Amino acid sequence: MEKTNIAIVGLGTVGTGVARLLLDHGDRTARHAGRTMWLKKVVDRDLGKHREVDLPEGVLTDSLDDVINDPEIEVVAQLIGGLEPARTIMLSLLEAGKNIVTANKALLAEHGAELFTRARELGRTIAFEASVAGGVPIIANISQCLSANQILSLEGILNGTSNFIVTQMDEKDAPYDDVVRRAQELGYAEANPAMDVDGTDVAQKLAILAHLAFGATVNWAEIPRVGIDGLDPDDLQYSRQLGYRIKLLALAKLADDGLELSVGPTLVRIGTPLAEVRDAFNAIRVIGDAVGPVFYHGLGAGQNPTASAVVADLIDTAVGRTRLTFQTLEYFSIDNPPRVKLRDAATLLGRYYFRLSVANHPGTLAAITAVLSKHSISIASVIQHEPDDGTEHADTVPLVIMTHAAAEGAAKAATKEIEALAAVNGPVVRLRVKD
Amino acid sequence: MEKTNIAIVGLGTVGTGVARLLLDHGDRTARHAGRTMWLKKVVDRDLGKHREVDLPEGVLTDSLDDVINDPEIEVVAQLIGGLEPARTIMLSLLEAGKNIVTANKALLAEHGAELFTRARELGRTIAFEASVAGGVPIIANISQCLSANQILSLEGILNGTSNFIVTQMDEKDAPYDDVVRRAQELGYAEANPAMDVDGTDVAQKLAILAHLAFGATVNWAEIPRVGIDGLDPDDLQYSRQLGYRIKLLALAKLADDGLELSVGPTLVRIGTPLAEVRDAFNAIRVIGDAVGPVFYHGLGAGQNPTASAVVADLIDTAVGRTRLTFQTLEYFSIDNPPRVKLRDAATLLGRYYFRLSVANHPGTLAAITAVLSKHSISIASVIQHEPDDGTEHADTVPLVIMTHAAAEGAAKAATKEIEALAAVNGPVVRLRVKD
Ligand SMILES: NC(=O)c1ccc[n+]([C@@H]2O[C@H](COP(=O)([O-])OP(=O)(O)OC[C@H]3O[C@@H](n4cnc5c(N)ncnc54)[C@H](OP(=O)(O)O)[C@@H]3O)[C@@H](O)[C@H]2O)c1
Ligand SMILES: NC(=O)c1ccc[n+]([C@@H]2O[C@H](COP(=O)([O-])OP(=O)(O)OC[C@H]3O[C@@H](n4cnc5c(N)ncnc54)[C@H](OP(=O)(O)O)[C@@H]3O)[C@@H](O)[C@H]2O)c1
Repeated sequence: MEKTNIAIVGLGTVGTGVARLLLDHGDRTARHAGRTMWLKKVVDRDLGKHREVDLPEGVLTDSLDDVINDPEIEVVAQLIGGLEPARTIMLSLLEAGKNIVTANKALLAEHGAELFTRARELGRTIAFEASVAGGVPIIANISQCLSANQILSLEGILNGTSNFIVTQMDEKDAPYDDVVRRAQELGYAEANPAMDVDGTDVAQKLAILAHLAFGATVNWAEIPRVGIDGLDPDDLQYSRQLGYRIKLLALAKLADDGLELSVGPTLVRIGTPLAEVRDAFNAIRVIGDAVGPVFYHGLGAGQNPTASAVVADLIDTAVGRTRLTFQTLEYFSIDNPPRVKLRDAATLLGRYYFRLSVANHPGTLAAITAVLSKHSISIASVIQHEPDDGTEHADTVPLVIMTHAAAEGAAKAATKEIEALAAVNGPVVRLRVKD
Repeated sequence: MEKTNIAIVGLGTVGTGVARLLLDHGDRTARHAGRTMWLKKVVDRDLGKHREVDLPEGVLTDSLDDVINDPEIEVVAQLIGGLEPARTIMLSLLEAGKNIVTANKALLAEHGAELFTRARELGRTIAFEASVAGGVPIIANISQCLSANQILSLEGILNGTSNFIVTQMDEKDAPYDDVVRRAQELGYAEANPAMDVDGTDVAQKLAILAHLAFGATVNWAEIPRVGIDGLDPDDLQYSRQLGYRIKLLALAKLADDGLELSVGPTLVRIGTPLAEVRDAFNAIRVIGDAVGPVFYHGLGAGQNPTASAVVADLIDTAVGRTRLTFQTLEYFSIDNPPRVKLRDAATLLGRYYFRLSVANHPGTLAAITAVLSKHSISIASVIQHEPDDGTEHADTVPLVIMTHAAAEGAAKAATKEIEALAAVNGPVVRLRVKD
């Protein structure tokens, strides 16, 4: 039987999962690849660290050169996070003639064009299934399985940490900080979960998906994004009363005048599939013009689900499918002009949820609705409860307003004017509502 | 740009959808295939029939020889249903050097080994994404995307017609015959939906999936199967009271002593994803040992969703990915011995739902529970209502029993003994309950 020699660079969470799959299930990978998938080298920088995998004698090294200078190694799973030295290492592996498999969405979102162009020049490939939605094979599904379609929209829950936090806040009525602490204890959130909860990670993944599905060339940092880090349990509760759950949603939607992209906490109607995605799960709903809606749900992170995606890529690369796909689709090619432009965020239509803290006296609601009406925003529903402390004469009361479809620009302007009203205390919470 | 010449044989529902995608979206297919996907010939037997697609001059023919004898045609979407002449036509197309794309699960379930072996001998390929779950790309997902995994189980709703009927019966409390008539009017059910509703179609699809996922060589007719054609609205109603919906479920589950396969109406807990699959949708839940649970949901039939799968296969075949997968995985190879054997149905453990019509007098329940207990079947819950007509002294009353896990053989034997009791009228309804 033929043999494909493989190396892993970066033996962390994902790398360990990949090493285990290759070492413990050689029969399976051989059957699915039609050849032996042989783990020849593993590079990590700290050889003294405790390992959760037994590597055969001579496999572990702290020298990247052991991979670079070994012409027998054809494929490298590069599983270091961050931008540098990940970028430099990937470039030198490509120069050395290796095909790459990566899970690093930050690197692709930032340096995709450079890396893919270099790979193409060198006749090498980069596979990246694990970079979006972990174990859910959304990259292959968009690139191949749905290739008969023009994708019309993508809606995704793409960050397991955020979804875990939001689910726990929702189900336990617990404040953000408590839940983050619990998530860290359980290993769902990293010591510094900033990029997960502020929407950065989701925006990077959305930039990648938008490129594959729509041919958009997007700087992830330009995608309008809001995280869940400021989320207030009150908003989860009011949303429930209105029949919604709040999810950190990535949205891409094609219209005649361009592509709409956004990331932010969004009200999703209870009972629809995305609203029921709980804890660390990810999900993506794709609409294609031929296939209609297709819904994918699975674990978006974690050692084994992510390793599942990496090893599938290693097999595809060994078999030769990756090369064909890579050559055909020319992803992240600087020669390919973008096929769509981004729509102007201000003109995007959407429904909104507003929560305000308002003075408990006559005329307040009238003043607020006057501002909304001036901006052509019509109201769908209102919740105005008794004051929290039960006293009838509290100074301020919460007011929740759900609107019909309105332009983002108008909603933003109205928010600013409402915040300036004397009867309104503090900032207004404004969230999107998925139709 | 390179060009791949394509033919369609059988311009029915699916064939028309495929022709439209190829003719109307040549730019898209070219981009995704890296070459022009050129529809050169369409063969149908009745040239006078009304067409829902405008074929360019010279494309339509009633002579298969126009394809067989045209060496420029490399790929053929063969979209005739049934076994013959579909089988003979496919063999002659293979002999003529064509690669095949098919949606015909009946043909594959019946003659897969013969056709794939011949294709392999001739160096040709057969792609069959559309044969299971229509637009949901489950074949590619099992064969490639989840290739790092040992699949542990598959649970699927694989027949849109049946699911439409069951959903409507459930939501409208309507009897089977009325709903079938409505489904036929709406075009969801064929004039003769026998193979859809009696479980045949699902068993054929499950036989294909079981081969891909587990290496099982299964005669579909040997898969224990029950259809929805005998389903009584009362059972849907009692199930709801117990917190379940009834779905026509295909099940494949790996255990140490072999593979369990079954098709039948099954109680699925309300709120779990499979229970919420409505109308003509299909869904599949796969559990892989690395990835965990992955859930797929989409349209399992219909012109465009099915054409989406066929055209994806045409693109994969033109690009060359199909050849690599076909060579590597050796599906339906007579040289590959089955990797698992089927488990003895009698030993399978499962929970059961029983509904009986029993004499309304003391001692009846005791007699029935004595039989169950004799067969080591313990009871989880019981529903015994007032007689249907409200009269307290009706002769017979319905009795519903839900059990804990019991062996299929024991459940079957107990059913027979219960049916023989004097206090029990008519046959016992016995349905499986998904854990
Ligand atoms: N974890 C997940 O669930 C998940 C899911 C999807 C995608 N990803 C992506 O997968 C990548 C890896 O994630 P991870 O969770 O496995 O990270 P991790 O646990 O931090 O692992 C990274 C490993 O690379 C090593 N490393 C760092 N710099 C190196 C260098 N210059 N040379 C050799 N080794 C080096 C690290 O060693 P030290 O420990 O000494 O720093 C560590 O062992 C990231 O891009 C991440 O975004 C992760
Ligand atoms: N429809 C779906 O949603 C769907 C979904 C998944 C898979 N499938 C599968 O796809 C296949 C096609 O289904 P369909 O719904 O498209 O069937 P269909 O509408 O009956 O189309 C079959 C076409 O083939 C033609 N045909 C039959 N024998 C022929 C022959 N010897 N030579 C040339 N043409 C011939 C038929 O012509 P006549 O009209 O003259 O008989 C008809 O136009 C079946 O295997 C089915 O199981 C269908």
